[in-house]
Amino acid sequence: MRTTADRDRLPKQDRSRVTRQRLLEAAVACLAEHGWAGSTVAVVAERAGVSRGAAQHHFPTREDLFTAAVEYVAEERSSALRALFPKGAAGDRRAVVTALVDLYTGPLFRAALQLWVAASNEDQLRGRVTELEARVGRETHRIAVDLLGADESRPGARETVQGLLDMARGLGLANVLTDDTARRERVVAQWAELVDGALG
Amino acid sequence: MRTTADRDRLPKQDRSRVTRQRLLEAAVACLAEHGWAGSTVAVVAERAGVSRGAAQHHFPTREDLFTAAVEYVAEERSSALRALFPKGAAGDRRAVVTALVDLYTGPLFRAALQLWVAASNEDQLRGRVTELEARVGRETHRIAVDLLGADESRPGARETVQGLLDMARGLGLANVLTDDTARRERVVAQWAELVDGALG
Repeated sequence: MRTTADRDRLPKQDRSRVTRQRLLEAAVACLAEHGWAGSTVAVVAERAGVSRGAAQHHFPTREDLFTAAVEYVAEERSSALRALFPKGAAGDRRAVVTALVDLYTGPLFRAALQLWVAASNEDQLRGRVTELEARVGRETHRIAVDLLGADESRPGARETVQGLLDMARGLGLANVLTDDTARRERVVAQWAELVDGALG
Repeated sequence: MRTTADRDRLPKQDRSRVTRQRLLEAAVACLAEHGWAGSTVAVVAERAGVSRGAAQHHFPTREDLFTAAVEYVAEERSSALRALFPKGAAGDRRAVVTALVDLYTGPLFRAALQLWVAASNEDQLRGRVTELEARVGRETHRIAVDLLGADESRPGARETVQGLLDMARGLGLANVLTDDTARRERVVAQWAELVDGALG
C-alpha cells in the first residue's frame, strides 16, 4: 500500500484513484476484523488515513463503501488468480484447486462473510449484496472452468465445478474461528483427485 | 410446540423441561431471523411466552442461552437424521447425501452461522462457539460415515466425507440470501455420484 507521502506526489486524478483504493482496502480489512456492526465510514477513513469528508466524497453511504470494497478486492483476487496460471491448469489441477480454495480463506472471504450475514438481517444491504454475490460467483465460476480446463458440454462437468466452489466456501467458513489448514490440505488433496477424475 | 395452557397441566419438573425447550427453540428462531445483535434474552423470553426471570433462571447469560440453543437443536437434528435411515444408506447414498445437505439449509444453519460470525468478533463467545462447533462437527461426521457406510480405513474415504460436509456447509451459505434450491439439487445429484464412486 502507498504511503500518504507517496500519494501527495501524484497528479490530482491519480491521487483520487489512490485514495479510493486505500479506502476500499481499509474497508475490507475493517469488515474482516470488526464485522459489520463495528465498521463505519469514519472508522475506515481513519484507518486509511483519509479525511471523513474525502471518504464521503467517494462513497456517499456506508453501503456504497462496503459493497464497492468487497467487489474491488474480489476483482483484484480474480486477476491475481488468472495471472498465476497464464496457461490454465496445464495438467496440474491440484494446484488450481488449491489456489481456488485459497480464495476463500483470507481476509476477503472474512469480509464478504460479514457483509453476507449482515445482509441477511438488514434490508438496506440485502439487494445489493445479493447482486454482488451473484456477480462475483459467476466470475469465480468462469475462472474455475477456464483454469481447470472443464468442458461444460459434458454432463456433470458444470455441477462438478460448482460443487468444488461450494466446498471451498464451506472450507472458508470452517477456517473463520480456528486455523483449519492441516485438515483442509488433506480434504483438498482428495477432492482435487475426485474433480480431476470427474472432469476427465 | 406446546402451548402455555398445555404446559400448566404438567408436573413441575416437566414444566421446567418444557420451558427450557421453548426457550431453546425460540432462541434458534430468533438468531436465524434477527442475527446476534438483535437477539437478547428478553426478546427470546417474550417469543417463548416465558417470563424474563424464568429465562434467566434457566440461562444466566446470553452466551449460555444461545450456545445451549444451537447445541440442543443440532442434537435434535442429528437424532432425526439417524432415525430417517435406521439401516444406514442401504444402497441409496444419494438420499443420504441429500439429507445431510438438508441439515445446512434450514433455520438451524442460519442460527449457527449468525453465532459463528458473531463469535469471530466477540471474545466472550469465541471459545464457547469454537468448542460447540468442534463437538457438533465431530458428531455430524460420525453420522455421515455411518449412514454412507464409509470405510475410513480406506485411503481418502475420510477426506471424501469431510469434503462432502464442507460442500454442504458451503451450499448452506449460498442459500442464506437467496433460494438456491434448484442449483443445489443439481450439484447434490452430481456429487452424490462422485462420492458414491469414491467410497466404493
